[in-house]
Amino acid sequence: MGFLLKPGLHLKKKTIMPEFRRDPIHGRWVIISTERGRRPSDFVPEERRPVGGFCPLCEGNEDKTPPEIIAYRNNGTPPNSPGWTLRVVANKFPALRIEGDLNRQGDGIYDKMNGLGAHEVVIETPRHYETLSSLPLKAVENVLWAYRERMIDLRRDKRFRYVLVFKNHGVAAGASLEHSHSQIIALPIVPKRVSEEIEGAKNYFLYKDRCVFCDIIRQELGQGVRMIAENEAFLSIAPFASRFPFETWILPKTHYPSFEHMDSSLYPQAAQILSETLRRLQQVLHDPPYNYIIHTAPLQEVDHDSYHWHFEIMPKLTKVAGFEWGTGFYINPTPPEEAAHYLREAK
Amino acid sequence: MGFLLKPGLHLKKKTIMPEFRRDPIHGRWVIISTERGRRPSDFVPEERRPVGGFCPLCEGNEDKTPPEIIAYRNNGTPPNSPGWTLRVVANKFPALRIEGDLNRQGDGIYDKMNGLGAHEVVIETPRHYETLSSLPLKAVENVLWAYRERMIDLRRDKRFRYVLVFKNHGVAAGASLEHSHSQIIALPIVPKRVSEEIEGAKNYFLYKDRCVFCDIIRQELGQGVRMIAENEAFLSIAPFASRFPFETWILPKTHYPSFEHMDSSLYPQAAQILSETLRRLQQVLHDPPYNYIIHTAPLQEVDHDSYHWHFEIMPKLTKVAGFEWGTGFYINPTPPEEAAHYLREAK
Repeated sequence: MGFLLKPGLHLKKKTIMPEFRRDPIHGRWVIISTERGRRPSDFVPEERRPVGGFCPLCEGNEDKTPPEIIAYRNNGTPPNSPGWTLRVVANKFPALRIEGDLNRQGDGIYDKMNGLGAHEVVIETPRHYETLSSLPLKAVENVLWAYRERMIDLRRDKRFRYVLVFKNHGVAAGASLEHSHSQIIALPIVPKRVSEEIEGAKNYFLYKDRCVFCDIIRQELGQGVRMIAENEAFLSIAPFASRFPFETWILPKTHYPSFEHMDSSLYPQAAQILSETLRRLQQVLHDPPYNYIIHTAPLQEVDHDSYHWHFEIMPKLTKVAGFEWGTGFYINPTPPEEAAHYLREAK
Repeated sequence: MGFLLKPGLHLKKKTIMPEFRRDPIHGRWVIISTERGRRPSDFVPEERRPVGGFCPLCEGNEDKTPPEIIAYRNNGTPPNSPGWTLRVVANKFPALRIEGDLNRQGDGIYDKMNGLGAHEVVIETPRHYETLSSLPLKAVENVLWAYRERMIDLRRDKRFRYVLVFKNHGVAAGASLEHSHSQIIALPIVPKRVSEEIEGAKNYFLYKDRCVFCDIIRQELGQGVRMIAENEAFLSIAPFASRFPFETWILPKTHYPSFEHMDSSLYPQAAQILSETLRRLQQVLHDPPYNYIIHTAPLQEVDHDSYHWHFEIMPKLTKVAGFEWGTGFYINPTPPEEAAHYLREAK
């Protein structure tokens, strides 16, 4: 869910430390975070538009967010004042808390620990009506630099094992504020699907002595049918086993396990292909709600050879039904070859 | 997604056999099914209400669905005519096809096979404005009998390895028709999350020599804080590591691996607790969109001791954002103890 600012929040209620809880069957960790809506009346079943009018992320409203952690500013402008092109601030209503330790505990057959972690917001532009796909290339590049800078800094905190970088665009994709932003969450655990992906890539490598992502890149460049865009260093594709219509991955052609340790010279090209891919999606699907996630190696135990960082972009076009949640089994009505065709043809 | 009838469907397009495709990293199978919307214009980003007016599932419109596979009827009424209380029909726009064989194939590093399977619709009531939570107990029980009857029949087809029973209620939960119905999909594979759940339960059993679900039941009955409802044979709880606000599980107190092989005497009580739990959700959350799935053992290789069938009900109250998809890592703003409290208090 999105959760930057939550209408109907009951701040008077006693603040309870967020908690990690482990499902005893799957071993899946869940955050129970009471910082956001919790009462039945907090859940409005109909579409809820972001609160109009005042926006705490706009230039001039710097005092409405927690102080900036980093900012890219015009020379001479003081912190937490106008004159910036990008700011990173702590999430005002964080899903996790930075203070304390994990304090692992059992409760009968259940396991839990404190909701320790960092939760930051990357404000991608000072202007309310710009989107990542409409921003100039230099601004998109700055977003990527900001991710990198924060990932490298958060890596220094030895309590963390994974840094999750993601973006929710549009209400249907979980964005609770309209103003263009992404989120960074540092976690004391490696999320389950991330571990599975790393494990899957490792198994492939053990069997073939090749990176599965490098093999995907070779096959996609060769076949061409699922190609969307390409520059010297990157390609974007509709993946062969796309879960969602118009699902799109962006991969660096050179093997790098982690986003933040990629050669610095490649970020401008990463910005170019991200921007171009988002613009193609925007044109074909008319500003679709979407999510993207940077899939990158965990902070520790990096297996350099088998994992390959990439973007996964998921337009939210269909309602994902219960059995897809509950089974990990997806029905996709749009063959990726057709999606890629439409996206390639877009001007 | 929901897919009973799809507005904007292009029936003139050449029908392509649906296809299973395997993700080479996770090993996850996806159905690429072109029977439903596929062009960019088929995706309407805004909420789409079910098409008003004509409903093919209503009594009197029996000729607008494929012929009934089973039906519970008033004495003497002929098949595919009025006079029924419940019908099961093939899905008019199935995600899978019943004919043919799997024809497993490789395409470079990718794997695929024919989209073989069964896809049926359980029409739960002849009347348009009834819902599962408003139906009389006997009608709810009939829905469960119909699931059972179809599961036992589909099990005879040795091509299938899993039968998925699920319900989408409400547009936000993926229902494409308003008329109360559930769906049954028989698959030649065991979906990934199902395998994981079975594997997790098996590991727990190997370690403890006890069923993890039986242990959950004991602890929940003992602690009481996550209890929602109970009868002699079943209980419903808010699970300890709930992924979603008001997530609810219903479990039989006696250990049965599969829904369809449970003792016949227990179905009335299963209907009672399902109905009561849905009514409590309905009252507290004002007719929330929801999905439920029957988690039951696969058709073959049943490990009798470690797996325990149950319902998982997931109200769709928040927008699930990208990182929850992409990581299997959930943030839930409502502690299950609070959800259970509200649901217990409901009249």
